[in-house]
Amino acid sequence: MQVLETIAQLRNWVAAKKEAAQTIGFVPTMGALHDGHLTLAKAAKAENDVAIMSVFVNPTQFGPHEDFDAYPRDLARDVALATSVGVDAVFAPSVAEMYPHDGGIRIHAGRQATILCGASRPGHFDGVLQVVSKLFHLVEPTKAYFGQKDAQQVAIIQTMVRDFNFPIELGIMPIVREEDGLAKSSRNMYLTEAERAQAPHIYAALQLARDVLQNTHDAAAAVSAARTHIEAHTSGRIDYIEVLSYPDLAAVDATTTDVLIAAAVYIGSTRLIDNIFVSNGGQ
Amino acid sequence: MQVLETIAQLRNWVAAKKEAAQTIGFVPTMGALHDGHLTLAKAAKAENDVAIMSVFVNPTQFGPHEDFDAYPRDLARDVALATSVGVDAVFAPSVAEMYPHDGGIRIHAGRQATILCGASRPGHFDGVLQVVSKLFHLVEPTKAYFGQKDAQQVAIIQTMVRDFNFPIELGIMPIVREEDGLAKSSRNMYLTEAERAQAPHIYAALQLARDVLQNTHDAAAAVSAARTHIEAHTSGRIDYIEVLSYPDLAAVDATTTDVLIAAAVYIGSTRLIDNIFVSNGGQ
Repeated sequence: MQVLETIAQLRNWVAAKKEAAQTIGFVPTMGALHDGHLTLAKAAKAENDVAIMSVFVNPTQFGPHEDFDAYPRDLARDVALATSVGVDAVFAPSVAEMYPHDGGIRIHAGRQATILCGASRPGHFDGVLQVVSKLFHLVEPTKAYFGQKDAQQVAIIQTMVRDFNFPIELGIMPIVREEDGLAKSSRNMYLTEAERAQAPHIYAALQLARDVLQNTHDAAAAVSAARTHIEAHTSGRIDYIEVLSYPDLAAVDATTTDVLIAAAVYIGSTRLIDNIFVSNGGQ
Repeated sequence: MQVLETIAQLRNWVAAKKEAAQTIGFVPTMGALHDGHLTLAKAAKAENDVAIMSVFVNPTQFGPHEDFDAYPRDLARDVALATSVGVDAVFAPSVAEMYPHDGGIRIHAGRQATILCGASRPGHFDGVLQVVSKLFHLVEPTKAYFGQKDAQQVAIIQTMVRDFNFPIELGIMPIVREEDGLAKSSRNMYLTEAERAQAPHIYAALQLARDVLQNTHDAAAAVSAARTHIEAHTSGRIDYIEVLSYPDLAAVDATTTDVLIAAAVYIGSTRLIDNIFVSNGGQ
């Protein structure tokens, strides 16, 4: 395991792998690794000659009142976990290493970023696309791995890779859940014991919405059932529950083949997201 | 010489060169090739194992009232000229091949794009960055070549490559001029004989500005001298004449090391641009 802290070190590592004609699997993360990240890392290692993970809490995707400063950072723990699943290198740059200049050029996500999490996090996905495009140019991966848990992020990154012709394959891995169904997240550690007991009801509500959608083909009824479930079983505040086409994230209609049912709920002060895919439009 | 019309053909060509560990020199153009382009192509061929040129009139960098439809297109002529200087492949895609989808993601150039040509061409440099980033991802060149004639374009592309960590070297080639000093341009063919006779005074005015700057260290006096020269010797309308730091394109001050003197002048209805670099700030 090599820990690479500078772009120069990373470029040397990448050049050596390219020269040896090795395929590179890449897992971009903000650290605070959990089983979801490790599932991505295992796939990166299994499907490629070498696997590299980035650990970088990217400031440009946090809003001014979000948890950039408080976001958990423990590089030694992350490196140990990455090592345990066979990752060959961790790229862990400083903010100054990643953003030494600002020439003012920005990538702006489009309509896909104005809904769901984007509605309450203006600029968030612009920052994600900025750092992901930088990391793609730095790591030059054969295949990059993302978790389906961040379904909107995945949809927007898929769109960027497609529309800007990045020479990179994407691997999208299923959500990893706790035994009671709660989607694994670095933010789960913020939950109190009482909040943690309520949190699995987000997934239960999504499953209920899926069943209603499959039985009634009625998106509004599915959303309503999920809302009622969360309001009945948690003290949480619903940010959104939506039924959308995937990956364009528009209203579902008769032509929709892949449906995303996505929720964001504040349990206490912790905002949790989760989602379910339904094939064949739930039609 | 291979003419590649689809992205699939291009990807195959690039993969074969990469597999053979060959370096790729790349010259992006909008066709209508002149000696300036061929100078770029010769450098691409001389400095790399193989050279590829793109010929694509990119709609997203033209404004609604600009000359996209009228822009000269003659692929057979361009391919013959590229062949004559040893180019190995020409990538000449259709608009539908380059823009089959629109997910709405855009690259926005920053302050550098708000002045000079950007002031009268809103969105132009956004479109340039869009197509250049797509072409960079498609061609995966070792080194890409641009002409110093489009100094603002070069400054903005250099900024994108730097800030977004493109794994690409840039080669910037000097302006190629007619014997009377007029910078070569695809748009020179639009000039009437009388206009063509006036056009060299743009370069003469820039040389005068350079001399005034070097003698007086007074940017305003340099601009004034160039304006007076153009007004005295042409019937043209000055769009801009500016003295700026390079590559940030800001006001010149005591710390400036590289100065760009740039002009855009309408001669008749044809807008011509030209520029001169002055090292050591003309100080």
